[in-house]
Amino acid sequence: MRGMSAPVFTAAELAQRFSLQLHGDGTAPVRGVATLAGAGPGQLAFLANPRYRAQLAASRAGVVVVRADDAQAAPGAALVARDPYVAFARIAALFERVPARAPGIHPSAAIDPGAEVSPDAHVGPFVSVGARSRIGPGCVIGPGCTIGEDCTLDAGCELQARVTLVERVRLGKRVRILPGAVLGAAGFGLAMDAGRWVNVPQLGGVVVGDDCEIGANTCIDRGALEDTVLEEDVRLDNLVQIGHNVRIGAHTAMAGCSAAAGSARIGRYCLVGGGAGILGHLEVADKVTVTAMSLVTHSLREPGEYSSGTPLTDNRTWRKNAARFKQLDALARRVNASTQGSPE
Amino acid sequence: MRGMSAPVFTAAELAQRFSLQLHGDGTAPVRGVATLAGAGPGQLAFLANPRYRAQLAASRAGVVVVRADDAQAAPGAALVARDPYVAFARIAALFERVPARAPGIHPSAAIDPGAEVSPDAHVGPFVSVGARSRIGPGCVIGPGCTIGEDCTLDAGCELQARVTLVERVRLGKRVRILPGAVLGAAGFGLAMDAGRWVNVPQLGGVVVGDDCEIGANTCIDRGALEDTVLEEDVRLDNLVQIGHNVRIGAHTAMAGCSAAAGSARIGRYCLVGGGAGILGHLEVADKVTVTAMSLVTHSLREPGEYSSGTPLTDNRTWRKNAARFKQLDALARRVNASTQGSPE
Amino acid sequence: MRGMSAPVFTAAELAQRFSLQLHGDGTAPVRGVATLAGAGPGQLAFLANPRYRAQLAASRAGVVVVRADDAQAAPGAALVARDPYVAFARIAALFERVPARAPGIHPSAAIDPGAEVSPDAHVGPFVSVGARSRIGPGCVIGPGCTIGEDCTLDAGCELQARVTLVERVRLGKRVRILPGAVLGAAGFGLAMDAGRWVNVPQLGGVVVGDDCEIGANTCIDRGALEDTVLEEDVRLDNLVQIGHNVRIGAHTAMAGCSAAAGSARIGRYCLVGGGAGILGHLEVADKVTVTAMSLVTHSLREPGEYSSGTPLTDNRTWRKNAARFKQLDALARRVNASTQGSPE
Repeated sequence: MRGMSAPVFTAAELAQRFSLQLHGDGTAPVRGVATLAGAGPGQLAFLANPRYRAQLAASRAGVVVVRADDAQAAPGAALVARDPYVAFARIAALFERVPARAPGIHPSAAIDPGAEVSPDAHVGPFVSVGARSRIGPGCVIGPGCTIGEDCTLDAGCELQARVTLVERVRLGKRVRILPGAVLGAAGFGLAMDAGRWVNVPQLGGVVVGDDCEIGANTCIDRGALEDTVLEEDVRLDNLVQIGHNVRIGAHTAMAGCSAAAGSARIGRYCLVGGGAGILGHLEVADKVTVTAMSLVTHSLREPGEYSSGTPLTDNRTWRKNAARFKQLDALARRVNASTQGSPE
Repeated sequence: MRGMSAPVFTAAELAQRFSLQLHGDGTAPVRGVATLAGAGPGQLAFLANPRYRAQLAASRAGVVVVRADDAQAAPGAALVARDPYVAFARIAALFERVPARAPGIHPSAAIDPGAEVSPDAHVGPFVSVGARSRIGPGCVIGPGCTIGEDCTLDAGCELQARVTLVERVRLGKRVRILPGAVLGAAGFGLAMDAGRWVNVPQLGGVVVGDDCEIGANTCIDRGALEDTVLEEDVRLDNLVQIGHNVRIGAHTAMAGCSAAAGSARIGRYCLVGGGAGILGHLEVADKVTVTAMSLVTHSLREPGEYSSGTPLTDNRTWRKNAARFKQLDALARRVNASTQGSPE
Repeated sequence: MRGMSAPVFTAAELAQRFSLQLHGDGTAPVRGVATLAGAGPGQLAFLANPRYRAQLAASRAGVVVVRADDAQAAPGAALVARDPYVAFARIAALFERVPARAPGIHPSAAIDPGAEVSPDAHVGPFVSVGARSRIGPGCVIGPGCTIGEDCTLDAGCELQARVTLVERVRLGKRVRILPGAVLGAAGFGLAMDAGRWVNVPQLGGVVVGDDCEIGANTCIDRGALEDTVLEEDVRLDNLVQIGHNVRIGAHTAMAGCSAAAGSARIGRYCLVGGGAGILGHLEVADKVTVTAMSLVTHSLREPGEYSSGTPLTDNRTWRKNAARFKQLDALARRVNASTQGSPE
């Protein structure tokens, strides 16, 4: 959606556009989307999680997106989808307000003479672009972004605001980066010499595949000798830290505040929970899920879900149990001694 | 305090101004504040924590703020307060140097013609303001801030420097945001379709109540269908992550690096420790304290203090105990078997 | 390295320059550096970790840096070093491309008339510098940096891009700060008064010693009454949080996403792992290592390695063991009761 006037669709139009099956009144108008509980007559809602089924009958939504077996329970028109959440996402995109970004370079921008900016890219105010960097067609560079030297943005990238590409960052097509993210800063490579730190030069870059999205204030360091790599369609949430030389497989998603230390290799279709950590130089197989705030301390060769940590309890209970954790090995030895003969 | 000349107060003036009881020499001058250990004759210090009582007699402070039963032990003049820390905070504010921010818009700022800026707001250099955004009276927008479209700042807000309001962010009165914070970025809403991620449009906004403060490089995502909400007087420290649709009750404080995942509802007067996490879709009651680096994995219906994790020990001890954690269920089963008849 | 033409050295030149012992062909050219596995004939690689020894014989590197006992196994020329990683770091620095930063102030920069900028400092576009701040000789202030009032940068500091020094930040010589870092923001000092938060004024500053490096989007708060202090050669990775009044000893390194809460005192030569936390008001001795995602909850008086947390397992196993953690005190009591007479 561009501009101010809100679009209107009928249920039948949406059914046709997204190949969904229509139940009920095809003329029902859809002027926006909302939750089942919050939607009114001109709005479309969805039911994906069966837990919320009770909300369906009570909803005032004019149109709902549901699975086939929920269609009868819909209070108004229904659009039947195999995956209602995906169908809803596609319909909702019709109502996104995308600010118009006219091609051209804001007069305040500081573009190095040795940089190349596609004539149909948009470069906002207070943007700087360094030598030998290239910004491809259709890119949108928001206010205050800093693009250093030797960076390449393929077609259709969006740097929303105040994004920094330090140096040697190559973005594929349609990469979207949220405000405050920093890509291509020097990795944390240090050697101790005679009691003082020596920097290990970080000569690599960052390569980001097509359709990746990088969250706000997230950091992706450039590689030491080779590149830090995100394959296509990787999704990083906010405040994520990716160390130098990490490789993240296609379609992997990492939630807020998670981190991967230097040279970790993460597979495809992995899900890393919020605040989880992956130590350096480990390998994580495809389709691994790490639950929130877990720490991966060894390579994971098999797909599956992994966890660490202890359950939350009231502090008094926790204190008693935590104190016993410090005696756990001694406790186990005593049990072993007193139940000798039992298999450990 | 505005400008360069340091103010001077007498003990008696401070007693009157803040309704404190004066003991000793009311003419004692106060030119600044300091710790008990560091204060000199022209300075005021305070004693709030009884642990530091031994420092009181040895202090060279000209004036001290204390509880009634410590007044006799004061080496010089004393101001008696029910809560010395609060009284000290109010007195110390007299000595804060607040940079003068003249009303007006810096010539470098890029203000959309469709934005409204109150004539007595201060807009610093390299600020951009998008269409349909409104900046209220007395607001201070520091250097490099980016305010997108459809944002509203009520009176007296301060965006210190390089703050980003992406879109649809509404700030109440006197909201203060520290450098690098990002409010209103798209929440991490994803659906998997045929092996690729589909973005779920994030059509909501962020609503921040009066007197909230947001720390440096903290991120608050905008809601998917409804708004992400901070009620009044919420305090977020640095590097905090707030997911989409989260609601945080009034007067709740979250320490550095803590996080609340999407749709979590946190009560009023909660304290969330540094690095702690709250999973999505949970409810946390009023007056809950979560200790540092704990993970809240289920809703908390009762006020109180909650914890998870294990105690810190030397690594060798930790390794032995941690290895036993992996056998804990087996160990418990053996104990149960060998002590059968005992209540579990 | 400045400019575009890549430098070339011979093995003999490098041996002389870095006082290394040469084995083999001193005329072997070195045009760049790479990993053992990735290096070609004109490149130099290194072997520091014996685990990778098998890669040495197979390497196509023209020159390798190794320990004495690996020199014979080198496929081409070898440079023998006591610490090959340090020697490699120094050699690799010859191949770093350092962008030329001509002295002078970009015309877009907003410099307060009361600020002082050394004539041989470089100040990039969209930089603002506040009253009474001084930028020393040889400093490089990258695009979009915001330097507030009363800040001092000694000679040779580098603020890469979009760095914020809020106020009262004093940097020693050669301090390097990566993009997005925020130094000198108000610490999280709060007092509750009649049901509302009162800010405790943060009147101190931040003092950073010579040769410190601060990572991207890292935050270091200014002190409340005294200063937050980093001694010389401290290294902070990305997304690190340092609370007010913290003191960090010389040569200590903290990895990504770690944090130290207010008034913690950390010794010299400490290593803090990624995501680890140190609670406020604690003291940590020199030469302490804290492993990743551990939480330091009490002062550590002795050097050594410390850990907390539980090992990662598959989620099903973890759930069973974690459930038993909640019964751990009861379990220990039963074991104690059933094995009475045994030493606890």
